[in-house]
Amino acid sequence: MANGLLASIDTPEDLRKLGEDQLPLLAQELRDFIIDIVSRNEGHLGASLGVIELTIALHYVFNTPDDSLIWDVGHQAYGHKILTGRREAFGSNRRLGGISGFPKRSESIFDSFGTGHSSTAISAALGMALAANLNGDTEKQHIAVVGDASIASGMAFEGLNHAGVTDANILVILNDNAIGIDPSVGALKQYLTAVKEGRNHKGNNMIKSLNFDYTGPVDGHNVRALVAELRRLQCIKGPKFLHVITTKGKGMPLAEENQVKYHAPGKFDKFTGKILPNEEAGLPPKFQDVFGLTVLDLARKNEKIVGITPAMPSGSSMKYMMDLFPDRAIDVGIAEQHAVTLAGGMATQGMVVFCNIYSTFMQRAYDQLIHDVALQDLPVIFCLDRAGLVGEDGATHHGIFDIAYLRCIPNMIIYAPLNELALQNILYTAQLGLDHPIAIRYPRGRGTMAQWQQDHAGRYEAIEVGKAYCLREGRSVAVLSAGSIGENVRAALAVVEDPERFGWYDFGFIKPMDETMLHHIFEKYERIITVEEGVVRGGFGSAVAEFAVMHRYHNTIELLGVPDAFIEQGTVAELHTLCGIDVPGIVEALRKAAI
Amino acid sequence: MANGLLASIDTPEDLRKLGEDQLPLLAQELRDFIIDIVSRNEGHLGASLGVIELTIALHYVFNTPDDSLIWDVGHQAYGHKILTGRREAFGSNRRLGGISGFPKRSESIFDSFGTGHSSTAISAALGMALAANLNGDTEKQHIAVVGDASIASGMAFEGLNHAGVTDANILVILNDNAIGIDPSVGALKQYLTAVKEGRNHKGNNMIKSLNFDYTGPVDGHNVRALVAELRRLQCIKGPKFLHVITTKGKGMPLAEENQVKYHAPGKFDKFTGKILPNEEAGLPPKFQDVFGLTVLDLARKNEKIVGITPAMPSGSSMKYMMDLFPDRAIDVGIAEQHAVTLAGGMATQGMVVFCNIYSTFMQRAYDQLIHDVALQDLPVIFCLDRAGLVGEDGATHHGIFDIAYLRCIPNMIIYAPLNELALQNILYTAQLGLDHPIAIRYPRGRGTMAQWQQDHAGRYEAIEVGKAYCLREGRSVAVLSAGSIGENVRAALAVVEDPERFGWYDFGFIKPMDETMLHHIFEKYERIITVEEGVVRGGFGSAVAEFAVMHRYHNTIELLGVPDAFIEQGTVAELHTLCGIDVPGIVEALRKAAI
Repeated sequence: MANGLLASIDTPEDLRKLGEDQLPLLAQELRDFIIDIVSRNEGHLGASLGVIELTIALHYVFNTPDDSLIWDVGHQAYGHKILTGRREAFGSNRRLGGISGFPKRSESIFDSFGTGHSSTAISAALGMALAANLNGDTEKQHIAVVGDASIASGMAFEGLNHAGVTDANILVILNDNAIGIDPSVGALKQYLTAVKEGRNHKGNNMIKSLNFDYTGPVDGHNVRALVAELRRLQCIKGPKFLHVITTKGKGMPLAEENQVKYHAPGKFDKFTGKILPNEEAGLPPKFQDVFGLTVLDLARKNEKIVGITPAMPSGSSMKYMMDLFPDRAIDVGIAEQHAVTLAGGMATQGMVVFCNIYSTFMQRAYDQLIHDVALQDLPVIFCLDRAGLVGEDGATHHGIFDIAYLRCIPNMIIYAPLNELALQNILYTAQLGLDHPIAIRYPRGRGTMAQWQQDHAGRYEAIEVGKAYCLREGRSVAVLSAGSIGENVRAALAVVEDPERFGWYDFGFIKPMDETMLHHIFEKYERIITVEEGVVRGGFGSAVAEFAVMHRYHNTIELLGVPDAFIEQGTVAELHTLCGIDVPGIVEALRKAAI
Repeated sequence: MANGLLASIDTPEDLRKLGEDQLPLLAQELRDFIIDIVSRNEGHLGASLGVIELTIALHYVFNTPDDSLIWDVGHQAYGHKILTGRREAFGSNRRLGGISGFPKRSESIFDSFGTGHSSTAISAALGMALAANLNGDTEKQHIAVVGDASIASGMAFEGLNHAGVTDANILVILNDNAIGIDPSVGALKQYLTAVKEGRNHKGNNMIKSLNFDYTGPVDGHNVRALVAELRRLQCIKGPKFLHVITTKGKGMPLAEENQVKYHAPGKFDKFTGKILPNEEAGLPPKFQDVFGLTVLDLARKNEKIVGITPAMPSGSSMKYMMDLFPDRAIDVGIAEQHAVTLAGGMATQGMVVFCNIYSTFMQRAYDQLIHDVALQDLPVIFCLDRAGLVGEDGATHHGIFDIAYLRCIPNMIIYAPLNELALQNILYTAQLGLDHPIAIRYPRGRGTMAQWQQDHAGRYEAIEVGKAYCLREGRSVAVLSAGSIGENVRAALAVVEDPERFGWYDFGFIKPMDETMLHHIFEKYERIITVEEGVVRGGFGSAVAEFAVMHRYHNTIELLGVPDAFIEQGTVAELHTLCGIDVPGIVEALRKAAI
């Protein structure tokens, strides 16, 4: 529960009734409120703490929601949500049925545009601003708040490049804290740092070159200075750019000191800021660490190995390799398109490139995958982290389309490891040289092999490309699973009645598929169930259906997976239930098939 | 046949034996040679004429292929091809079995990286340069030649932003002719023009801000000056940037005067430059013109209509609307990502947005389509021009993946018109308001309705979303076609024996599919053939297979379409034959199915 000033603010209208001198106190209350809730509920902490004053100043000065306010990426929008009618709902942040951790149009009229992926805000705001001009409304302002990591992404440049030749009422606010999730990189970052430190005496020429009215840098934690500056900008027509300096994690000393860890720290002590111990001992490893540690180990032995990550060194665990081989593991920033073609360029020179991109962000580099890599059949090794349902980040971040959008690309190999060991071994196999690009998709979070590190790490076995495995022979129903969702199949088979009726096959290779095994299965079993953690349309089950049709099999096939709808946030287990691919859901499908 | 100096040059080694004073003559010969061949064979003329001197200078100075040379977009690489062993083969340019109209790794070791889509060269060259550093080779140079339209695309910025913090031996050459296919747009273009015209006295600060060693602008048609400058740059380590001013179509007065028309002029008189008359009278209209004229007409009546094109005003025929409603039809430059999210932003404000993007280029905005439009269910109208096999542009440009990559996206409507009338009517229907995004895919080139303009244009009929049409009842075999490839089905049915055996159904709506009609078809017909101009994996036929599986139908289904391979260049008719979707191919499938 909020007290004090915050308790009285149900809409920005209420905020605007406060005196300017009350805003610093409100900032303190808002900060405490966020720390209190996030310390217990988890969530994105640092980014929201960094824009408390900016959030207050924006809603104080501008006439939201008539003026449009778009938070790029959106995980810094907690303060915005709390000030726009969602103070009480904030306790349900990121939970199933609760409010989203990101701005979302269907949730509030103050969320002008849904965000989640980076660098979209300028384009969206410009679209709104041009529409306002066409509608004859030349007073409305359209504000895009963009971080310094996001603005270095190509899409943001495209937006700026267009905005600069319009008379659109757009205000781009650069929230410059020198960090995304990991520290920002690139030439633009160096340039902005020079501007910030006064080493560039003409202000931000680069932005001025694009025809923007540039001001800055200003202190993003001085709320009254921000209000004054925004009041001035409010009256200026056309494209404007305000460079604001903030500190990620502002107001919580530990969060300011360790910004990477406190991006999304999990549960912590709200008074000391100390992160609460996780019961980690004895748990299976994260797939991310299996990736990171395995690639590091392989890189020690194979000097051709190179790693590329677009701004996710920590999240992907590419960090392990970056620490030991800083020349051979590269963070290119939020630049998935560049990452993929860079990987292609390196592969032409015989480098063995592990390009690690979250499944949902690979959507950003789809053309580069097709045109620069697959068409030239370059053997880049794509590691699609966070494939499947990612949990609390919700609809913007689920990695559920990859099988469908990859399967139609010629030359691509697609593999989904069942467990940690399979991931380790496919990474080993891929660096031996496959002569084709491969996409290895694996989920967020922990696997099932608590003893992986002790019993298996470093003991590699090559995997035969295109081979499926029979994990269990059965009588009448065959379950074909692709990837780690297979562990739910294992659990379902352990509890279903008369388990000897059911065969289980691990189709790690979604492409090419093991047609010999498929013929065996279609000949032996009457009924077939496919299970995948991805959309059914065009996915793994769809490939099995195509096979059946092409080979004139008439077996009954049941396709389990993500339905044709966007899936909101929740725990991964809850979302599995929602999609019918949790253990009870699979048990039910088994029972039905066996009737 | 080449004469003179050109006849003696089979590799760049031969070129390097010439004296510098012979280079202007060689340039003249090379220009004449290209004009001679392209005047008869068609192809991309203007871009290659503009870089004749640059091409000669690059191969003269640098040690290609050990130094890597990448031509961004690649349609300016004719001179490069001719000087690197493909002089005699150039007569087969863009033909089936001939050389590609674009650089292609499998064609020549001088083609360091395949291109076709824009803005990839910096990333690829940087990948090669970083690989060279890791391999201990710090002498090699890596050159990316990028046009001013391409460099404004976000991906190019990502490459520059990364290169600027490396010590990679990369030379970015800006080929600044102020035009892509249509005139360049955007703030960066204005800025470069200022630099070029000497209105920016400090040279190109923007590029310097990204840590590049900047030189320019230099005259791109003075081959000896270029040689001197490249010799100087050859010895400089790290990232370098050379700003070269060229004239598209240089050396052919008509091509210089009308650069848009002479980008790819078709056949022309090589002496006068005059474009040869096409036998156009009485031919059916191009789908592009049906789009352009219809949207223009609709825009007259519906003031909410807005058009967006990423750098294809002429190619898409958005030009019609741009000429009449310059505020309401926007060329955003080569910025597909921005185009899609801009459209989304406008749609939130009630604008009716026709966002026209070639099918192959929509791959560039896949994430924006999913994350910014479909997830928010914004009713943007995407017009996917050049869907299917595009002919002579070949593998980089075929629009064959769209059905597969769109079908897995929730909320999307996908429609492929059978003919001009269907295209006109879906455009009309879409602007009435569908409450969901729609992708309308149609092919490059002419339809079949010579009388469309006279008999149908402007006489709109709304189309019911999701409805399929029976075009012909049959006895035992049903053909289901999606889109204009259906005309090949019509022709096949006109020549096959016992045509009454065959039913024909037009599934313009690939999503949502007409399930009522599908049930009818699966119940009535024993065998089913699907026909589409796109990849079979995950495509329209795959959707029919999924339906059959989900509803436990056991009919025999044959899936016709593009196989799981990249398809090279050729005429559209030749490529239809290659894929078995020409008239004889469909007749054969009909015969087989009816046995």
